[in-house]
Amino acid sequence: MAKRLKYWGWGYEGDGLQPAQTEALLRTLRDGYGIQATGDGGGPSALEALTMGPARLDPPANLAPICRTDAYERALHAFGQSQPDSIRIFAGDFAHAPDVVAYPETAEDIQRLFDWCAIAGAALIPFGGGSSVVGGVTSDVGSGFNGVVSLDMTRMARVLEIDDVSRAARIQGGARGPDLEAQLKPSGLTLRHFPQSFEHSTLGGWIATRSGGHFATLYTHIDDLVENVTMATPAGEMTSRRLPGSGAGPSPDRFMIGSEGALGVITEAWVRLQGRPTYKATAGYRFGDFFAAARAVRAVAQAGLYPANVRIVDGTELHVNGAGDGSFTLMVVSFENADHPVDAWMARAEECCLDHGGQIDVAWRDNPRANLEGAVGAWRDAFIRMPYGREQLTPRGIISDTFETAITWERFEDFYHAVRDATADAVLAATGKPGAVSCRFSHAYPDGPAPYFAFHGQGRPGAMLEQWRAIKAAASDAVIRHGGTITHHHAVGRDHQPWYEEQRPAVFGDVLAAAKSRLDPTGMLNPGVIVR
Amino acid sequence: MAKRLKYWGWGYEGDGLQPAQTEALLRTLRDGYGIQATGDGGGPSALEALTMGPARLDPPANLAPICRTDAYERALHAFGQSQPDSIRIFAGDFAHAPDVVAYPETAEDIQRLFDWCAIAGAALIPFGGGSSVVGGVTSDVGSGFNGVVSLDMTRMARVLEIDDVSRAARIQGGARGPDLEAQLKPSGLTLRHFPQSFEHSTLGGWIATRSGGHFATLYTHIDDLVENVTMATPAGEMTSRRLPGSGAGPSPDRFMIGSEGALGVITEAWVRLQGRPTYKATAGYRFGDFFAAARAVRAVAQAGLYPANVRIVDGTELHVNGAGDGSFTLMVVSFENADHPVDAWMARAEECCLDHGGQIDVAWRDNPRANLEGAVGAWRDAFIRMPYGREQLTPRGIISDTFETAITWERFEDFYHAVRDATADAVLAATGKPGAVSCRFSHAYPDGPAPYFAFHGQGRPGAMLEQWRAIKAAASDAVIRHGGTITHHHAVGRDHQPWYEEQRPAVFGDVLAAAKSRLDPTGMLNPGVIVR
Repeated sequence: MAKRLKYWGWGYEGDGLQPAQTEALLRTLRDGYGIQATGDGGGPSALEALTMGPARLDPPANLAPICRTDAYERALHAFGQSQPDSIRIFAGDFAHAPDVVAYPETAEDIQRLFDWCAIAGAALIPFGGGSSVVGGVTSDVGSGFNGVVSLDMTRMARVLEIDDVSRAARIQGGARGPDLEAQLKPSGLTLRHFPQSFEHSTLGGWIATRSGGHFATLYTHIDDLVENVTMATPAGEMTSRRLPGSGAGPSPDRFMIGSEGALGVITEAWVRLQGRPTYKATAGYRFGDFFAAARAVRAVAQAGLYPANVRIVDGTELHVNGAGDGSFTLMVVSFENADHPVDAWMARAEECCLDHGGQIDVAWRDNPRANLEGAVGAWRDAFIRMPYGREQLTPRGIISDTFETAITWERFEDFYHAVRDATADAVLAATGKPGAVSCRFSHAYPDGPAPYFAFHGQGRPGAMLEQWRAIKAAASDAVIRHGGTITHHHAVGRDHQPWYEEQRPAVFGDVLAAAKSRLDPTGMLNPGVIVR
Repeated sequence: MAKRLKYWGWGYEGDGLQPAQTEALLRTLRDGYGIQATGDGGGPSALEALTMGPARLDPPANLAPICRTDAYERALHAFGQSQPDSIRIFAGDFAHAPDVVAYPETAEDIQRLFDWCAIAGAALIPFGGGSSVVGGVTSDVGSGFNGVVSLDMTRMARVLEIDDVSRAARIQGGARGPDLEAQLKPSGLTLRHFPQSFEHSTLGGWIATRSGGHFATLYTHIDDLVENVTMATPAGEMTSRRLPGSGAGPSPDRFMIGSEGALGVITEAWVRLQGRPTYKATAGYRFGDFFAAARAVRAVAQAGLYPANVRIVDGTELHVNGAGDGSFTLMVVSFENADHPVDAWMARAEECCLDHGGQIDVAWRDNPRANLEGAVGAWRDAFIRMPYGREQLTPRGIISDTFETAITWERFEDFYHAVRDATADAVLAATGKPGAVSCRFSHAYPDGPAPYFAFHGQGRPGAMLEQWRAIKAAASDAVIRHGGTITHHHAVGRDHQPWYEEQRPAVFGDVLAAAKSRLDPTGMLNPGVIVR
């Protein structure tokens, strides 16, 4: 029997943290930050016990074969992977679950779903891997619809063509990361797009949410990996021309990228591939001061070296994740390439790190296992298991969330203080304890970093949702007030929509509303996201 | 007295080809390609002799101080720098000249111009340096308006702020290339965006037309150099947030970039700067076969080296421009950097060239003057003077034009044959002689090149416009039919609009029309371009 996805958390049933890993995390939060687990972390409510009404929609005969209405499917598609989603899941709050889950196999199926939803007065929520941490797939659309259909793309998951001359592939929107890479592997090529959600997110989801890959510079955002996009809309299909570059009018690709299921469903795309890297080097440096490390990142980012990785992780973030004692900031630098040795690149980047006071944690010369060693390796292990933490923390009454942004360098230090302090103050106000607020950089540009914050706080049983809302609002207000973006790669979703509306030019909001009226006249597509 | 811009061609009065340069060009076209000059190339009609009616619009008192209605200003703003523009200029066909030329000095001036044009029923054509080669500023808007106003941005030309930490500057839209760089120079930073039109084009024009810079890879398109954009529209100002990166919804920047004056006027932008390069290397290689050279470009482009230049120029293009005898294709490779020596990069790129059969034309090691030597230097000189050729050729009855596109590598060879043959056939059909058709690459991506074609043909006095139209239509049809983009960096303008409408997704055309209705309800802005 195939592994089943959890309806209450990350990944497949049976996968998760080892008990010792959970213990270590809880111990650090308790001893280091005064955050006490409450309850025993018992699992979620059984399917039968969830608050979920009968399905209000009845798919027509031509759609019935691809539609599911059983409790498991409805529960699985009711939420994404955000902190508020998790809190509601463990409270058994599934009243808003979708009435129908549809698994289209063709573009025609999707068009038929549009037609039916228009007639039925239903909302339609595109669903890829369901990994949204910002409420992007949460099927809570208010009372303006006669029901909700979740459109699960994962049966449209094939690599349709591989072009090994131009290094590109045509891939269906529902392909998850591992499946997509497995289909590419015989060609020797890779999309090399590894968001943290890689295992449980899809190409269409990456395009819809402007996903950021694991790599820190250059071709890492899905925006830059797309040659064309095909998006199904109730008004017809939008397929841009497959091109390496173009200057013909405003980019139709960049209009579809980031549309978050509110303007259409990404059914396929041509994407740029690369040779699998054979030359690699990784190094780790310790800094006593987070800002000194940030200046080293700036030096590397402005040197025109384009490392695969140039990331800093502050002491708290390392400590909470068991990769440091809190006394130092770690900087990881790596280069990789399918064509040529990277020594000249790495040597110059190292100079930048040492110039700014870095101490070598893991050396790169003649060290192919550098990425597994020292704080570098410990952080890597923690990073991989991170998504599994929430299902342990939420039922133990511990609030744990992240948010990410970008800001230009000259504003970074003030921005950091303002956002960090606002978040810490809000954690204290909401929970009565200081909790933990930490920061790392997920990406670095010549003109600024993408700071990635995490916070942990003591929850109160029954009040966690409002505690989280207060902290999230304070942090988001600070991000917007001090010039950042409300999201660098997590996307807008329902959770960021109010701040997104502050951020975007008002007149551009009007343009998006006009576009939505044209493409989705009944407003069925992912209501409440991007356009309200 | 300040130098005056020519109303009949490129640059300032008094600047142009030396007589010997014109002679050499005419001799090559005659002896090499059978294209005979007719007439003596006498200058354009005097201002007084141009066919130009009285101005039909009378600016209100609050705008009169920034408005001009004299014949010189109207003539200067009647055309851009395209081949059909040039043919009409030398025919004295200025009946469509704008009635008023406005030089706004503030965003408020622009808003007042919008208000007045709405009341007056006038069209408004944003004008930067006037270098459009695709009819983007040609003030021929048909009979649906009571008059035409040309909005010249060049009095809004200041660098307003320089941020040397993030390496960025806030610059007004009307700043021309040399002015902009002169204002940046004290900071030691450069925008390093050098389109061939650099001297007579503006930041706002670059953003409006998705300009491509001189450099062949990586950060060369203005699209990638923009941190934010401010665009004035009749519905209000649209200012995106200044950010190094963002994932918040469809990019408002990418919506304004490429809007070609049809959705608004780019008044200012924050743009990314770089350190002035200090480490440089250039090399030249000769190939007997254009496709072998193309494969060398592909190898370099897919190696992850990101050269400043990786360009091939075919034998005909070299020959016509006096930089070769027609027997070889030239490949120019260069790297430059403000941070570190480029030897490791250059050495690997050279291996790619030699692997594909390249012969060294100019060596790079210990050769700081490589870019001035051999065919590399000859081509460089020709490239700089190229825009001055048209004012010599048009009045001598010689049709001379270029068009550029992009295509993925796996389709490139077939595409090249199809487009080249269609163009050559059309030159023969239209002129009765084979003429000359040549190709170079202006930019190279890992997934495909940007081929740049040129054609020369024998014109017939009085029929040149229709001859050009036939050739242009055949070439454009072939580009679109065989999968290319109608423009890689010249823009859409009036000349490419029909093919642009074939290229873009129809549903996206509807979105742009909806956006235009919202932003420009009276349809005053650059009518006929992007949205018809």
